[in-house]
Amino acid sequence: MKNRQVNIGIIGLGTVGTGVARILLEQKELLTTRSTLSFNLKTIAELDWNKDRNLDLSQVNCTTDVDELLNDPEINIVVETIGGYEPAFTFISKALKNRKHVVTANKALIATKGMELYKIAQENGVDFLFEASVGGGIPIIKGLREGLVANRFESIYGILNGTTNYILTKMHRDGLEFDEALKGAQEKGFAEANPTLDISGGDAAHKLTILSSIASNSFIPFDKIYMEGITGITKMDITFAQSFGMTIKLLAIYRAYKDGLDLRVHPTLINNSHLLAAVSNELNAIFVKGDFVGDTMFYGPGAGERPTASAIISDIVDLSRDLLLQEGEKYCNRAISLTQNVQLIPIEDVTSRFYLRFMTKDIPGVLSMISGVLAENGISISSMVQLESHEKDNYVPIVLLTHEALEKSMERALQKIVKFDFVKEDYLRLRIFEES
Amino acid sequence: MKNRQVNIGIIGLGTVGTGVARILLEQKELLTTRSTLSFNLKTIAELDWNKDRNLDLSQVNCTTDVDELLNDPEINIVVETIGGYEPAFTFISKALKNRKHVVTANKALIATKGMELYKIAQENGVDFLFEASVGGGIPIIKGLREGLVANRFESIYGILNGTTNYILTKMHRDGLEFDEALKGAQEKGFAEANPTLDISGGDAAHKLTILSSIASNSFIPFDKIYMEGITGITKMDITFAQSFGMTIKLLAIYRAYKDGLDLRVHPTLINNSHLLAAVSNELNAIFVKGDFVGDTMFYGPGAGERPTASAIISDIVDLSRDLLLQEGEKYCNRAISLTQNVQLIPIEDVTSRFYLRFMTKDIPGVLSMISGVLAENGISISSMVQLESHEKDNYVPIVLLTHEALEKSMERALQKIVKFDFVKEDYLRLRIFEES
Repeated sequence: MKNRQVNIGIIGLGTVGTGVARILLEQKELLTTRSTLSFNLKTIAELDWNKDRNLDLSQVNCTTDVDELLNDPEINIVVETIGGYEPAFTFISKALKNRKHVVTANKALIATKGMELYKIAQENGVDFLFEASVGGGIPIIKGLREGLVANRFESIYGILNGTTNYILTKMHRDGLEFDEALKGAQEKGFAEANPTLDISGGDAAHKLTILSSIASNSFIPFDKIYMEGITGITKMDITFAQSFGMTIKLLAIYRAYKDGLDLRVHPTLINNSHLLAAVSNELNAIFVKGDFVGDTMFYGPGAGERPTASAIISDIVDLSRDLLLQEGEKYCNRAISLTQNVQLIPIEDVTSRFYLRFMTKDIPGVLSMISGVLAENGISISSMVQLESHEKDNYVPIVLLTHEALEKSMERALQKIVKFDFVKEDYLRLRIFEES
Repeated sequence: MKNRQVNIGIIGLGTVGTGVARILLEQKELLTTRSTLSFNLKTIAELDWNKDRNLDLSQVNCTTDVDELLNDPEINIVVETIGGYEPAFTFISKALKNRKHVVTANKALIATKGMELYKIAQENGVDFLFEASVGGGIPIIKGLREGLVANRFESIYGILNGTTNYILTKMHRDGLEFDEALKGAQEKGFAEANPTLDISGGDAAHKLTILSSIASNSFIPFDKIYMEGITGITKMDITFAQSFGMTIKLLAIYRAYKDGLDLRVHPTLINNSHLLAAVSNELNAIFVKGDFVGDTMFYGPGAGERPTASAIISDIVDLSRDLLLQEGEKYCNRAISLTQNVQLIPIEDVTSRFYLRFMTKDIPGVLSMISGVLAENGISISSMVQLESHEKDNYVPIVLLTHEALEKSMERALQKIVKFDFVKEDYLRLRIFEES
């Protein structure tokens, strides 16, 4: 590294790329004060140069040719901000093969192709960081990997998706149905035009894959993570949850047991006394329980130009320290092993407390039939609410909270219950969060 | 560094030292997996070897002679856990002069002698870390210095002292007076036999000094920080705060303005909707607002053997990475300048909303006299509560919440109000937290 100057290339000048460029330009002196290094934004590769981004790029090489950046021997660190699988994967691999460190916020890519990219990085003696991929501006990956390095992680759980948290907050506070809340979120820019990845739990599962890999020091296959979205939740369920003193949140959950990891993403009822119940709108928060530190929480904005760029810059500064390391002494791929295999516990074998909401005909014996099936499957009820009928078709909601039960017992019971002709097919089963 | 083995010496085997030794022994393999380095607990210097600490020290050189450790050329990192000013200062300086990196949790020492120690470290090309000195196991220093490196810090505020937070929680939840709550905290081990440093706000001010130094990249003189403790708060004040939908917390506050830093520690009324209001018992939490990241929060255990040791180990692993750096390329004293001077805003010039509680004789005209003095000083009242007399001496509490007012105006008004013969001398003035 010449004169302690780090040369940086950015691929893509969308929201995140613009934020990164802005910090490199606006906070240049601050970063030097704090790191004793000089950060030079050398090249930006972007196809659309017509958009006004309110940036002074007069000192930056602006190109449409990514190879110009990838093949520049002076560039030390490449920041990929275009997102998606391709051409991002190709660009990142090429950068690593050209012995450049890479920083990205591309959670979908890391969750699915992380192992391949790590292997390439390792073979080429460079590093690959992605703090911004989980929790936006919150330094959660650094927290797990460095701040809490002394700990085996017993549980990690939290709100990792801002879109669904915004929707659920609106449903709770303004009494909206899911569709109305989604529409409002789209209008305010908190949900994409195609919101599937967020509302299905997929985005949170990508992030959980990444956190779990770091926490367990092993690659976790994304497709093995159990996930459920929030589309089945109605205004009525929110009201019931509130009547029990609880809030519905989409939680990503990591729990380490002797026989493996329990990893899942699903909407969850959580007691209002828990700090996570108060994490609202588009904000993210992650609880981390380590065997030495105990319970910690990290909270902040999970997305957006400026928070995401803040996290990317943190990776850039860290990698620049690595640039000072001697060859052969590098810290490549720290904290994730390429070989270790961790056992995952299948969802069927997980135990939870449940919230069950059925729409049933308002006729005698309904409750005894339903509770009978639950009892047959060893599931006991802790509380129950049955409301009077207001609907024309004479269906009324019955809500049951259960004690702890095995998922497979619950599944068996539900399959039997929905076959009753007095029960509508669209029931809802949610899990209730319990401290581990 | 030979064979990537890091040799560690610990000075002091009290609570924290025992925790550090425990992690180095019990998590040895985990630390190697995560860092590719091997951590060897070589020597412990301690005067009292009779106590049973439930540690297997058969592979460790146990001595009563600190010099044996300080003069051992094989030892790379020295952990100081004895606390206090002397002999801690002498031991740390000697270790630094012998070119050993140093880790400590000694907040009193860093807050008051940090600059001297930093200078010695810099002169000797070694580093000096103290993650455990603020927020116990919470990686807040790493968060500020590395995770949020891209940000100018606009405000930092939070609960930095577990003892006072425990006492205030008990006063809120169990309706205790201060003395009763303190006694309970002492019995449970959450308060020292001599609790002065905690209840005066001194410990929180030490920690604020450290955070402020890092956040502003300058040494902040501890004795310039305004502080008030919690001893004047009564059960009655807690009840009033609750009636306004607020909670009383001892907050440490950092606010950066164009003309300087506003730094203070004092009990504060905070709205119950704020996450900090829900941080209870001995827990700590710190809000950090950066110009790019926005609002983040770090939460967790602020003290204790295991959390404090977790933070110390994080420093040890970080320093071990520095050991891989080439000579002359070290990152000494990152993030704190030895020369820069930051302007501090004197408390008189700070603006706050206030909570005022007077005990006054139950006679006509009292309220108009008090509010008259406030008005004369440009202070306007936002709400007021006056209770009927239940006390034999016919004194009743009057509580006023004000709009924003200058401290010096408030001080002037208070000096006049307490001179009224119908007002008892022991009034209470608290500040109300407002989002900046």
